[in-house]
Amino acid sequence: MLLGTVIENIWATRKEDGLTGLTFLVIQPGVDQKHISSEMPIIAVDRIGAGIGDRVIVTQGSPAGAVQMDLKIPIDAIVIGIVDTPTNGT
Amino acid sequence: MLLGTVIENIWATRKEDGLTGLTFLVIQPGVDQKHISSEMPIIAVDRIGAGIGDRVIVTQGSPAGAVQMDLKIPIDAIVIGIVDTPTNGT
Amino acid sequence: MLLGTVIENIWATRKEDGLTGLTFLVIQPGVDQKHISSEMPIIAVDRIGAGIGDRVIVTQGSPAGAVQMDLKIPIDAIVIGIVDTPTNGT
Amino acid sequence: MLLGTVIENIWATRKEDGLTGLTFLVIQPGVDQKHISSEMPIIAVDRIGAGIGDRVIVTQGSPAGAVQMDLKIPIDAIVIGIVDTPTNGT
Amino acid sequence: MLLGTVIENIWATRKEDGLTGLTFLVIQPGVDQKHISSEMPIIAVDRIGAGIGDRVIVTQGSPAGAVQMDLKIPIDAIVIGIVDTPTNGT
Repeated sequence: MLLGTVIENIWATRKEDGLTGLTFLVIQPGVDQKHISSEMPIIAVDRIGAGIGDRVIVTQGSPAGAVQMDLKIPIDAIVIGIVDTPTNGT
Repeated sequence: MLLGTVIENIWATRKEDGLTGLTFLVIQPGVDQKHISSEMPIIAVDRIGAGIGDRVIVTQGSPAGAVQMDLKIPIDAIVIGIVDTPTNGT
Repeated sequence: MLLGTVIENIWATRKEDGLTGLTFLVIQPGVDQKHISSEMPIIAVDRIGAGIGDRVIVTQGSPAGAVQMDLKIPIDAIVIGIVDTPTNGT
Repeated sequence: MLLGTVIENIWATRKEDGLTGLTFLVIQPGVDQKHISSEMPIIAVDRIGAGIGDRVIVTQGSPAGAVQMDLKIPIDAIVIGIVDTPTNGT
Repeated sequence: MLLGTVIENIWATRKEDGLTGLTFLVIQPGVDQKHISSEMPIIAVDRIGAGIGDRVIVTQGSPAGAVQMDLKIPIDAIVIGIVDTPTNGT
């Protein structure tokens, strides 16, 4: 999976069928602030409530459809986890 | 998913079976005009009416076939959304 | 899909089962002569008669098996279209 | 498959359904210490007990779900082997 | 498919279920000796007897499992052909 940071929300009113109600986020790939990737941001669906600035784990390709949604939905990236933030003092 | 801009139409009269009538677009990957990607343009099928200059969200790989079309069609990229344009004053 | 130019034929007498009779082409990715990609050439199966020098559209990944062939064939790239050449005067 | 070295564990308390109990590792792609890749680390599931510093073989994409787990789990990378360490004197 | 050269064997005693007895090769992507790729080597399964130095065609992704093996095996790359060597005088 890819590790990245949520940088933006994105909206598309005109879209393929079956995508209504899904949240689309712009994710900047990169392990942490010190290792910002030069790779292009990607767009991923989010169902677990990730917000701007969260570090997230993103599954790509056809396994992205392997959530409880209809397998026929044409998405290729989904946020599967929000990385735990170290607590104060760590 | 990938974010890009439609730059061209492309036609192929000689093609594999099952692709007749589909619209093929050339898409330049890149988040916006300020961050033009050096990645090569890709070809994607469009069924929602994207035009040249539109910023679009493209699903790649086998989920691209997960639209209401026949799953046997050999395509690996489809436009799933046209990104909303900010209205005047934004 | 990827856009590229056929640069060579390639033959493999020793191969996995189920691949006998298929034509394998070496394809240089790149939109046109002015934008030759630095990406490595790829190998794709061709069933529509593409020749050296033809600009072709190539589908990659598991959708490449989504042609009328046996889905169990281990290929990950197929030529799905030959791009139309502009006629004289264009 | 990709060859890499385990560099870190990663935890995500908030995650998609079906992922509870899985171990997530951060893997630095690269053949060996002399050929460290400039590619970004990836996140992979591990079920065979790989530890930090182990050189591992990672399967990516939908075959990563082809283990005895539920095929509906949205993961796209899994450690499938720990590369044998040469014994003393080698 | 990818074209590359076999550079090494690799062994992993500790591995996921279902992989016992398979041969794993390290493959350097690259069209020929003159165009050595800067891409990282990949690991592929071989069932057709490729040896070190052989130029091979490698199928990646889920079609790699589309050989007569159990589709549940978590591999994402397989050697599907050994490129014919030009005979003397060619």
